Amino acid sequence: MSSNYTPLTEETTVEAEQFELTEEGLLLTPNAKPATKYKDGTSIDWLHEETEERERRNALRSEAGARGILLPVLDASRMWFVVIMTGIGIGIAGAWLDVLVKWLSDLRSGRCVYGFFYNQVACCSGLDPGEVCNEWKTWSEYLHIRSIFAQSILQSFVYVVLAIMFAASAAVLVVTYAPYAFHTGIPEIKAILGGYVFDAFLTPWTLLIKALGLALAVASGLSLGKEGPLVHVACCMAYLLSKIFKQFRNNEAQKRKLLAAAAAAGVSVAFGSPLGGVLFGLEELDTFSNESEVMWRGFVASAIAAVSLQWVNPFGTAKLVLFQVTFVSDTWRAFELIPWLTLGVIGGVLGSLLIRLNVEVALYRRNSILADWPVLEVVCVSAITAAISYLVVFTRVQTSELVSNLFQECDPTKGDFHGLCNPSALRQNVFLLILTAAIKLLLTAWTFGMMIPAGIFLPTIAIGACLGRAVGLLTQALYRAYPTAWIFLSCPPDPSVRCISPGFYAVIGASAMLGGVTRMTISLVVILFELTGALSHVLPIMICVMTAKWVGDALGQDGIYSVWIAMRRYPWLPPVDYRDKGESGASLMKPIEHLIVIEDEGTTINGLDNVLTEYDFHGFPVIRRGKLVGYATREKLQAAIEHLLTEDATAERLKLCSFSPSQSLLPWEERIDLSGTLEEAVLQLRKEVPQELVVSMFQKLNLRQILFTHAGKLTGMVTKTDVVSLLTSHFPHTATLSQRPP
Amino acid sequence: MSSNYTPLTEETTVEAEQFELTEEGLLLTPNAKPATKYKDGTSIDWLHEETEERERRNALRSEAGARGILLPVLDASRMWFVVIMTGIGIGIAGAWLDVLVKWLSDLRSGRCVYGFFYNQVACCSGLDPGEVCNEWKTWSEYLHIRSIFAQSILQSFVYVVLAIMFAASAAVLVVTYAPYAFHTGIPEIKAILGGYVFDAFLTPWTLLIKALGLALAVASGLSLGKEGPLVHVACCMAYLLSKIFKQFRNNEAQKRKLLAAAAAAGVSVAFGSPLGGVLFGLEELDTFSNESEVMWRGFVASAIAAVSLQWVNPFGTAKLVLFQVTFVSDTWRAFELIPWLTLGVIGGVLGSLLIRLNVEVALYRRNSILADWPVLEVVCVSAITAAISYLVVFTRVQTSELVSNLFQECDPTKGDFHGLCNPSALRQNVFLLILTAAIKLLLTAWTFGMMIPAGIFLPTIAIGACLGRAVGLLTQALYRAYPTAWIFLSCPPDPSVRCISPGFYAVIGASAMLGGVTRMTISLVVILFELTGALSHVLPIMICVMTAKWVGDALGQDGIYSVWIAMRRYPWLPPVDYRDKGESGASLMKPIEHLIVIEDEGTTINGLDNVLTEYDFHGFPVIRRGKLVGYATREKLQAAIEHLLTEDATAERLKLCSFSPSQSLLPWEERIDLSGTLEEAVLQLRKEVPQELVVSMFQKLNLRQILFTHAGKLTGMVTKTDVVSLLTSHFPHTATLSQRPP
Repeated sequence: MSSNYTPLTEETTVEAEQFELTEEGLLLTPNAKPATKYKDGTSIDWLHEETEERERRNALRSEAGARGILLPVLDASRMWFVVIMTGIGIGIAGAWLDVLVKWLSDLRSGRCVYGFFYNQVACCSGLDPGEVCNEWKTWSEYLHIRSIFAQSILQSFVYVVLAIMFAASAAVLVVTYAPYAFHTGIPEIKAILGGYVFDAFLTPWTLLIKALGLALAVASGLSLGKEGPLVHVACCMAYLLSKIFKQFRNNEAQKRKLLAAAAAAGVSVAFGSPLGGVLFGLEELDTFSNESEVMWRGFVASAIAAVSLQWVNPFGTAKLVLFQVTFVSDTWRAFELIPWLTLGVIGGVLGSLLIRLNVEVALYRRNSILADWPVLEVVCVSAITAAISYLVVFTRVQTSELVSNLFQECDPTKGDFHGLCNPSALRQNVFLLILTAAIKLLLTAWTFGMMIPAGIFLPTIAIGACLGRAVGLLTQALYRAYPTAWIFLSCPPDPSVRCISPGFYAVIGASAMLGGVTRMTISLVVILFELTGALSHVLPIMICVMTAKWVGDALGQDGIYSVWIAMRRYPWLPPVDYRDKGESGASLMKPIEHLIVIEDEGTTINGLDNVLTEYDFHGFPVIRRGKLVGYATREKLQAAIEHLLTEDATAERLKLCSFSPSQSLLPWEERIDLSGTLEEAVLQLRKEVPQELVVSMFQKLNLRQILFTHAGKLTGMVTKTDVVSLLTSHFPHTATLSQRPP
Repeated sequence: MSSNYTPLTEETTVEAEQFELTEEGLLLTPNAKPATKYKDGTSIDWLHEETEERERRNALRSEAGARGILLPVLDASRMWFVVIMTGIGIGIAGAWLDVLVKWLSDLRSGRCVYGFFYNQVACCSGLDPGEVCNEWKTWSEYLHIRSIFAQSILQSFVYVVLAIMFAASAAVLVVTYAPYAFHTGIPEIKAILGGYVFDAFLTPWTLLIKALGLALAVASGLSLGKEGPLVHVACCMAYLLSKIFKQFRNNEAQKRKLLAAAAAAGVSVAFGSPLGGVLFGLEELDTFSNESEVMWRGFVASAIAAVSLQWVNPFGTAKLVLFQVTFVSDTWRAFELIPWLTLGVIGGVLGSLLIRLNVEVALYRRNSILADWPVLEVVCVSAITAAISYLVVFTRVQTSELVSNLFQECDPTKGDFHGLCNPSALRQNVFLLILTAAIKLLLTAWTFGMMIPAGIFLPTIAIGACLGRAVGLLTQALYRAYPTAWIFLSCPPDPSVRCISPGFYAVIGASAMLGGVTRMTISLVVILFELTGALSHVLPIMICVMTAKWVGDALGQDGIYSVWIAMRRYPWLPPVDYRDKGESGASLMKPIEHLIVIEDEGTTINGLDNVLTEYDFHGFPVIRRGKLVGYATREKLQAAIEHLLTEDATAERLKLCSFSPSQSLLPWEERIDLSGTLEEAVLQLRKEVPQELVVSMFQKLNLRQILFTHAGKLTGMVTKTDVVSLLTSHFPHTATLSQRPP
């Protein structure tokens, strides 16, 4: 079957209704364009996709009568269907995941006597307050083991073995069925939203394995969180749903706009933070800046996801706020800025350290024998993690439980988490907290990048919360020791009255650490107070995140996601403010001597075919005696000449390719009109323009290439890849993890 | 004294160190460029300003030795100095304004016996709880008037007369000293941040009069708020501070980046909402999208402003949250979505109505006798407002107090605001609330646009809060009447237990109304919950704002600020997603036949002078036999030929202007090299590109013009004005209030 493109000679009048007759002969109408298909690993052409979408929409609108009104409405409702269904889907998936994780991790300590599939809370529900829960038994109780020694051996054995089993199954699932389900997924999502084509990353298999593997990985007690992977899962869902409708299947740009909304919904569910989801999309994914309509979809998806999560209500609290913080007082004192700024600096330094360690581990993993034994690595790390966790009291519980306890103020009416509120155990507590932070830091640096789904948010929060609580305890001890010192003048002189809230110091520590690792600002602040409900303390959180980001940026320019994007060499343009040192576009562009160009009416179809076979570029500038005629993409050229290569049309193949027939001096029998393959939206610059402007045009307009001309003559070209290389050139390990080394 | 530009003949070797000797003769070096000056009413050229800033920065960095390190640091610290000082300044100014307003408005009811300058709270401070304050006397008490009739006459007389006096003084101040201090200021700030030059709007006089007039206007009880004007005051402060340093004085782009940070700080102080300030800058002012560095400054300015406000602590509460909301429970029920969505729809409809009424009033004011009697108008409106306010019980207090009471839940331990919590007075309460909303709506529509400083946020919140509370009361009454109906199943069956919080319905109503009037989304949600502390209810607020915006957009595309910008015809590009209907750039551009172009080596200096005198354009394309050579701005051309016109150089003035000397065939004696006046960063497009792309390039790259070429030949040009006209063409009253009618 031939393509829509046929040689433009008079013999081919069979399909003449597809063509317009012009003076120069037959010209391809725009409607005859084939859908551009991209291979994995390439970048989409936003301008092209947007043009197609516009043409499709205009075609709908210009339908006669009621169809012209109904079809666009149907079109929009399809989009909202996907957005809303993704929101509901990820809300329910998030709730289901929470239940699964709770059950799996409770299983490591014991089981419910009247049903294997109940978790501890469900098992003990329905009891009056004060009543002891006899239905939940530890494994040693369940197996009626009396000896205390045998009990502790059994408990620790089950704890460690189940951890290893969970982690190993997650790793096996990932390695066997969906290798792209490993890691957090956010770097890839960022690249995809920026235009990278990576369909294998969003398959239904990946969705299933990532969700299941995530539950297993979290339950195994490894130092990882569910936040990033949930964003990935949400995007997989949206991708799956978008496949239903042709309008998204055929248009990569529209698909990406849906994925952006899905990512916001993912964050919304992961943190119970609907507004944080929108802002995450705005700041970190940098997608909403293009169109307010996209932000709007993110807003809706995010809200609906949060409503679904709250409606499913997995733990019966009906609260979105995950780590509810209660404060002793709504005010804070000026002197507290000293410990908080210190925490900000610590967060910035340790965040950079964590990023650097993680990079080193990733490089080591790539280049050592570990690369061949991913499951074994996961088994070893989970064994070590479980063993250490069992020994250090704070790490034995789920990380989320630890964080929740660290954020809690000491309240005599409630329980005391492992003696954290005992003022006489100050030294032990501070030591234990710092030890926990150090262990978590090392384990996280190793875990983030193994072949299991793993997010970095929760471990980072845990590290920061430990350090923050330690600083809070120290400040509190100082105040108790010197209640009348001038620095504490703003506190009541009676040390028995609470003045310092160590729980809030933990929140501050978590903010600082997150700021250092992710380098987010506004969205982080919003996520943090949606997470904790600490609205009255938004100012200290803001100041602390600011400090951490400043310090972190001074020690290393990129956040953890940017580092991974650079290491895997995705063609993603960081939204940084690039500043040149006086260079112009000339120093960035490939000059015309090094470009592969097509000479208008200077190449036969055969010659064109050779060019397309030999060079792998996405498109080629077309020139006529040095003057720029236009830009032709590989896809269109291939489609246009395809049937000439399959059929036996040797005579045709020696004709010259004409891209600007109106200027042609050749008789029409000797040329083939390929003017329909030319891209019309060609952006031209002079090579004297500052490099800054070139970079910012790529960043803001989602371009694939800019052509440089002078007085109509082509002088050079800059592609997105050139700009990406320029912007990642400061990072030493660029492309070290890419699948195809440069 | 001649300018830096001198005729480029060999006679002028005196200043030769400013020039480079090239083959073609003397060529101007870039350093010799004069600072571009803009007149009020024009638009700045962002690309040009950015280029200058880059050159300045590179010059600093390339200084030898320690200077090369120190000077850039000093440069950055100047910027931070302005940002931080603006933050502190506006924080203190906001606090001072609160105190002044409180004193002035308390003065309308009475005075402190032991000091005229104490407000009621300060006068009665230091009392034990329960003790009656005898130090604060109403005017009739103070003047020892016994008769109740005389008392009420005197009280109402003082109330109304002082209101008129305050309003009249505000109007006189504005009309006499600073006419630009009227209105909210946000439309102008938006235009200025987009590149509009309007220096008269930011003078110290405007700063002073706006602050003073604002206090008087708010105290007069007119239906207006302080929020918008505070943003204006903050920008005036930043402008004043930026004048100290040459780097900002000489560069309009840098100045605007400081103003953006100041605007964020203004919002932060106005609402006690540091994060809301940043998001307001992000969403409504649309400035931060250009550079993350600018957002960063807004973040810092906003935080510092909030800290200063909290530090000054004008009312001793040490709280940023202005209208603290306390909820009966943290959860909400699904059936409540019905009244909330209804409120969203009402907010959208009434918001559109308010905008339309406001436009009608503004047009009437412009075209009737009112235009000549601005002070009289203010006096009349304030008299009517005061009289009505005194009669309707809810409006007698300050609007902020009304809102605060409406947001409050009924609590038997606290006072009952005018019987609002009395369930038997349901009908009266609902009637009174709706009446209050209607009065406020009409008064606000008239007040917003008079010759006094006036913000629209607070009145809008008040209208919405009244309606929300009314709906809340009705829902509550319904629940009390039918506690067992299936719709209320999720509530406890005992109607004495609280299930519905009418106070929160007031918050929802306020959100909906704000959404309808301003059409903001994310920043509005953040401002609202920073304002109320209602974090656990972020979802209903989000949903409600979404609904209001949807309904509002369906009834009329623009928010109140966009409408005013369009009416005053500022050259501001709305950040909307423009969708063309298949048009290409060709339909937007002025074709070459209608352009004033300069022919390279086709014009004498005399001819050039004539062109510059005759046409008012910002710049002219330069062509050579139809081919585009470049773009020359009026300023540069004028500077380059200035001295030829002042001195007696008649011979010189007959020489031809050469813009591309390298291609010249003329001997150098017969031409004058003006190639230094050419802008290098010329953006060229084909006229076939879709209109959408042209519009989005203007929106995202802050361009002033795009040139259209084909094969090097100039075919047309699109300027920012063309795009603004295109984007505001749907609004019927465009330019009706502009100073210079089109």
